Amino acid sequence: MKRNFKLIISYDGTRFSGWERKDGRDTVQGKMEDVLEKMAGEPVKLIAAGRTDAGVHAAGMCANVHIDTRMTEKEIRDYLNRYLPGSIAVTEVRECSERFHARYNAVGKTYQYTCFAGEVRPVFDRRYVTVLDFSPDVEKMRSAAQVLVGEHDFMAFCGNTHFKKSAIRNVDTIDISEEGGYIRFTLHGNGFLQNMVRIIVGTLLEVGRGKLTADDVSEILASRVRKNAGPTAPPQGLCLMSVDY
Amino acid sequence: MKRNFKLIISYDGTRFSGWERKDGRDTVQGKMEDVLEKMAGEPVKLIAAGRTDAGVHAAGMCANVHIDTRMTEKEIRDYLNRYLPGSIAVTEVRECSERFHARYNAVGKTYQYTCFAGEVRPVFDRRYVTVLDFSPDVEKMRSAAQVLVGEHDFMAFCGNTHFKKSAIRNVDTIDISEEGGYIRFTLHGNGFLQNMVRIIVGTLLEVGRGKLTADDVSEILASRVRKNAGPTAPPQGLCLMSVDY
Repeated sequence: MKRNFKLIISYDGTRFSGWERKDGRDTVQGKMEDVLEKMAGEPVKLIAAGRTDAGVHAAGMCANVHIDTRMTEKEIRDYLNRYLPGSIAVTEVRECSERFHARYNAVGKTYQYTCFAGEVRPVFDRRYVTVLDFSPDVEKMRSAAQVLVGEHDFMAFCGNTHFKKSAIRNVDTIDISEEGGYIRFTLHGNGFLQNMVRIIVGTLLEVGRGKLTADDVSEILASRVRKNAGPTAPPQGLCLMSVDY
Repeated sequence: MKRNFKLIISYDGTRFSGWERKDGRDTVQGKMEDVLEKMAGEPVKLIAAGRTDAGVHAAGMCANVHIDTRMTEKEIRDYLNRYLPGSIAVTEVRECSERFHARYNAVGKTYQYTCFAGEVRPVFDRRYVTVLDFSPDVEKMRSAAQVLVGEHDFMAFCGNTHFKKSAIRNVDTIDISEEGGYIRFTLHGNGFLQNMVRIIVGTLLEVGRGKLTADDVSEILASRVRKNAGPTAPPQGLCLMSVDY
């Protein structure tokens, strides 16, 4: 009799080729499934809330897995953490309803993107920030961000230009905080397209450096054309903070 | 005409064979002197407040260097940060009196040693903590730490058993804080012997796990014999926070 477990996973994505399992590559899903299979003694399929790109981090990725085991939640968590590399930790394991599906049931996600624009680049968290070579105008970025808040067709902010399904998403929060040289973008929405957070941040940084205005961002959004938006911000600044169900 | 500059340096010691220059090894002094020599166009000697062991970090190492340059303090800082690896940053450069000597003039140092004893090991700062496989009794460690506070002969806590000079040092603070699974030891003193902070922490952890008492620590201190003290705690938890002049 298989039981369904919900896992909260934290990882440093620096040396991974993203979440999704790929043969011959180190991926988070691959490492997780290897350890889960060792534990379960049979093939397992780990279903995640979404995929993260190569180099992107997570503090609260959510995934579920059906396994036949008599272990307790805590025993599973400790087993996984014992065999996973130091760059991945399972912070929580909870048995859940048989029908729980980490991707289909996700109703919201929070991402944080961290830039550094101070005088001396940071040493200790250097793998988790994108160092800027200019000081963006945060107020201008905040105004432009408001153009993107709400339900919109985000096709212009989708990294997959062959994407055929609906690109309509509701982004209800784009907060931008500034402290000690760090500029943090916090986004919450009901779903994000491929590279969407990184393209939004890349576009807002163009506003912050004075190359685009809030009106330009409004036109970019309306155009639905990816190449009109700014560059895809580098992966290392991005972290999936949590998933809502 | 040579000018004397005081540098504050931050580094992630994970991949370095310590501070001190060694041929064929990556060391912080080696990297710093290489970049300084490139900048100055002549051999330079960087004088540090002290040496850190392989794997030990610094948030505020202090060093001085005599160079013949017309560059401003900020130009020097930015030049160094441009050419140094991401694991080293110079946070401050100040021109100082010709006689300032980073080692001889140091009158105090603050070190922090960070352990983790929570349920799930940390991912993002894993290179800067020592993960414990037990939860130490912090109150007992605090009592035992008080035995060491003050001016004492710390020979029992010196990693160099052939050390012939005076081992008398004044340690005026050993604070132990506990938060969210992290246990942080903060030590301040007028000087520390080789491995002294790590041996003090290693000994206090033996108290925290119930293998030694505060009275034992008092006897260890009085014995002046290294092998009576606890093990040398691993390097990755240690960080030199600042140097007083």
